[in-house]
Amino acid sequence: MDTMTMLLFGATGDLAARKIFPALFRMYLDRKLPQPFWVVAIGRRAWSQSRFRAHIEESLRDFCQDRAGDFSRLPVFLQGIEYYEMDVRQPQAYLNLHHYVRSGESERRIGENRLFYLSVSPELFAGIAGNLHRSGLSQTSGWRRLMVEKPFGSDLASARDLNRKLGEAFAEEEIYRIDHYLGKPMVQSLGSLESANPIIHAIWNSRYIANVQITASETIGVEERAAYYDHAGAIRDMVQNHLLQLAMLTAMHVPGRMTAEEIQAAKRNVMEAVRPLDKEDVRLHVVRGQYSEGSIDGTHAFAYREEAGVAPMSMTDTFVAARLFIDLPRWQGVPFYLRTGKRMKEKSTRIVVQCKPSEEAELPNLMVIHVSPDQGMTLRLNLNGPGKPGQLEPVELKYATQENLPEPYELLLAEAMKGDRTHFAQWEEVELAWRWVEPIRAAFAENRVPLHDYPAGTNGPDAAYRLLEEDGFTWWLDPQDEPVYTPVHAR
Amino acid sequence: MDTMTMLLFGATGDLAARKIFPALFRMYLDRKLPQPFWVVAIGRRAWSQSRFRAHIEESLRDFCQDRAGDFSRLPVFLQGIEYYEMDVRQPQAYLNLHHYVRSGESERRIGENRLFYLSVSPELFAGIAGNLHRSGLSQTSGWRRLMVEKPFGSDLASARDLNRKLGEAFAEEEIYRIDHYLGKPMVQSLGSLESANPIIHAIWNSRYIANVQITASETIGVEERAAYYDHAGAIRDMVQNHLLQLAMLTAMHVPGRMTAEEIQAAKRNVMEAVRPLDKEDVRLHVVRGQYSEGSIDGTHAFAYREEAGVAPMSMTDTFVAARLFIDLPRWQGVPFYLRTGKRMKEKSTRIVVQCKPSEEAELPNLMVIHVSPDQGMTLRLNLNGPGKPGQLEPVELKYATQENLPEPYELLLAEAMKGDRTHFAQWEEVELAWRWVEPIRAAFAENRVPLHDYPAGTNGPDAAYRLLEEDGFTWWLDPQDEPVYTPVHAR
Repeated sequence: MDTMTMLLFGATGDLAARKIFPALFRMYLDRKLPQPFWVVAIGRRAWSQSRFRAHIEESLRDFCQDRAGDFSRLPVFLQGIEYYEMDVRQPQAYLNLHHYVRSGESERRIGENRLFYLSVSPELFAGIAGNLHRSGLSQTSGWRRLMVEKPFGSDLASARDLNRKLGEAFAEEEIYRIDHYLGKPMVQSLGSLESANPIIHAIWNSRYIANVQITASETIGVEERAAYYDHAGAIRDMVQNHLLQLAMLTAMHVPGRMTAEEIQAAKRNVMEAVRPLDKEDVRLHVVRGQYSEGSIDGTHAFAYREEAGVAPMSMTDTFVAARLFIDLPRWQGVPFYLRTGKRMKEKSTRIVVQCKPSEEAELPNLMVIHVSPDQGMTLRLNLNGPGKPGQLEPVELKYATQENLPEPYELLLAEAMKGDRTHFAQWEEVELAWRWVEPIRAAFAENRVPLHDYPAGTNGPDAAYRLLEEDGFTWWLDPQDEPVYTPVHAR
Repeated sequence: MDTMTMLLFGATGDLAARKIFPALFRMYLDRKLPQPFWVVAIGRRAWSQSRFRAHIEESLRDFCQDRAGDFSRLPVFLQGIEYYEMDVRQPQAYLNLHHYVRSGESERRIGENRLFYLSVSPELFAGIAGNLHRSGLSQTSGWRRLMVEKPFGSDLASARDLNRKLGEAFAEEEIYRIDHYLGKPMVQSLGSLESANPIIHAIWNSRYIANVQITASETIGVEERAAYYDHAGAIRDMVQNHLLQLAMLTAMHVPGRMTAEEIQAAKRNVMEAVRPLDKEDVRLHVVRGQYSEGSIDGTHAFAYREEAGVAPMSMTDTFVAARLFIDLPRWQGVPFYLRTGKRMKEKSTRIVVQCKPSEEAELPNLMVIHVSPDQGMTLRLNLNGPGKPGQLEPVELKYATQENLPEPYELLLAEAMKGDRTHFAQWEEVELAWRWVEPIRAAFAENRVPLHDYPAGTNGPDAAYRLLEEDGFTWWLDPQDEPVYTPVHAR
């Protein structure tokens, strides 16, 4: 791997403490970092080097407890991280930073390869990129890469604007847009699921598949993110990025051995074929919900509108269910259902692929890809005999990944360091996704779609069930006490 | 269920003690026997009623230990069983038996439905059937059914002769030929595996399947059956019946909801299409083996020829591997490999369906149907990422049946009592199987096929590996320490 400098903007932030530094420490322990490796940790706070390192050390002791046996290696790891105080809004500051980085590179004998990581408030993205460009920091004799966190815009226009501004400083192939769902091992498996498995290839089409259900259901509420969330809603926070990415990966067809470019082309091909919605038709295909008072695991949960930081009459969506069609021959007539919500009964991200029925069996075959918190697969078949002789009954073949899998941030950082863009969101996908979301966003803003309430701790509003019942289907929820997936008709 | 009398010939024998009476007791406890139900337990020994019942009680206490909590119900169960001493070679004795049965039926208010079960030496089958007919015992106003144990003949001619003789007394649809493999739950599942599962239907053909490997591998030797076995060999004892039945069930296509007749037609259709072997060609497709001295789980094991009751220069096959082709469009070019042996390393009966390779993955998809001792299914897929990010690796989705499944004899008895012939071997299948085996049997007898030795406790002779290597394949053995199925190229 090339020697490099990582310039981390937002180094004193929450994400850096909880995800980025722990990922780097694990990579360091597993010898997955280049040598020498240098992190310039940029923050606005007037912290000393030792205070910053103590702060990081504390995070690592919290978030890498499973590696406690390796804590003796913390001091050497921390020596590769230097805190750099600056106000990222000041152009002049970038000249100083540039000078600092060049000296450090020379001193540490690091090639001029620079990985810029923007873990800051999104309104700073464009300004930082422009300043990197103008200061010369991003003009390197080696490579330069920009990792940028979500959200990438708040609608089609702002996303385009942001992309144009980043484009002044970085070429598209130098930009690594993070969608951390793409760093989850089972999501990474989706890319080759069909091409590496003739059994799946055989059924991955409208002849065999009745519908696809993509769920990202959380039990938590908005926590400390109310100010952002109350403007974004589930449609921006989850659907435009994570859920549409999962839909693209599930529906795409990658012939033969896959490269990052082939996967990107395959994803774009899907997203281009997603049937657009008219603003007037949104209410026919999209269900909007917001949680009311309820209880989660026996604990009282406040209504969304009672949460700190949320407007008392907020109309923000904390739940969205949507039906979409992909107008490709392979998926003709197969609805893809997306569903996401906060304060739900289940904590689960998964993709359920429901096969068309057989004449003989009452229950359809299911293939479930478990993304989180469990990671693995379930295949439900009908067998005649094993439990009740002479009767067909559903049985499940299960695979669960081992524990201690790498975290998404470990995988994504390693890929960006190697220059592998396979599991990052490309601009064309992002733009197409915003374009599809645009009428939904507008219909929500204009209140053209009813806002259904659902008690916290339930499976969402009844309207989400009616959406599937119109097509003769029902949501497959995680079985609680049942040995196999069972259809659930009501919350 | 109809009231009935079960006339069990061979009631003092080993099979009755170990399998038949335990199955009846379990059925009794689970209320799966008709009421009233009467067993006339026929044996040659001069035993009193109480001695016989004590003998049965002892067996039940041994073989139904899991139902020990129900042993208080043993006395009532045993009241329904009456020992009847007779010499089954004496025609006169059947007139007495007839009189006895008629009185008992009348006294117990049981309809004239009679289930005759032949658990006796096969040379007695025809004589008993003839006597049942001539004595009038099998001329009932209700139904009559004949359950008959294996072996059904020792070659094509003797099987035909036996069938003709049984046919004088019973119509084909009244004859229930027991192949206890057909009573195993996972084998019963095979019948509807394709028709009840679109996922399996999609791949169940030569476009997706590379080969099918059917193994019945035992660790035991010939035990007390040497006298029979040394004449029969694995080809008669296992291949002609169990393995060909499994091949028929795996390869058959039952469209829509299945009846016993449809399954029989589908199995016959397969067996008719199995490409016949010339006696001269047998050596090209069939491997014959016999175990030599070795060790099983660290315990010394004698060579077959050293076993008590085996001829010192015996040429009997204790191992057979065979390649067969089924000339149906669906299976064109897909080899079915059969393999069975005694004193093998593994104790396992299973069907491994190997899919054709994908361009991308090194290892093929496998679907494994575990028949015994474990019962369940394994599906091996290739996933990219879960264990080793960025690399394809095989993972297994597994289903294991719960413990305490009904025993084959429970299922088969229940089916015969209901008049359901789905899981019994029909004459046409038996005849076709013998016809296919005939040149193999002859080639063995004429020593046209080498007799390879294999040390006890191994996976059989190397020649069995070469048989598959000719086609570019290898046997899939049960993984011992590996998390997934791995190909094994040598024993």
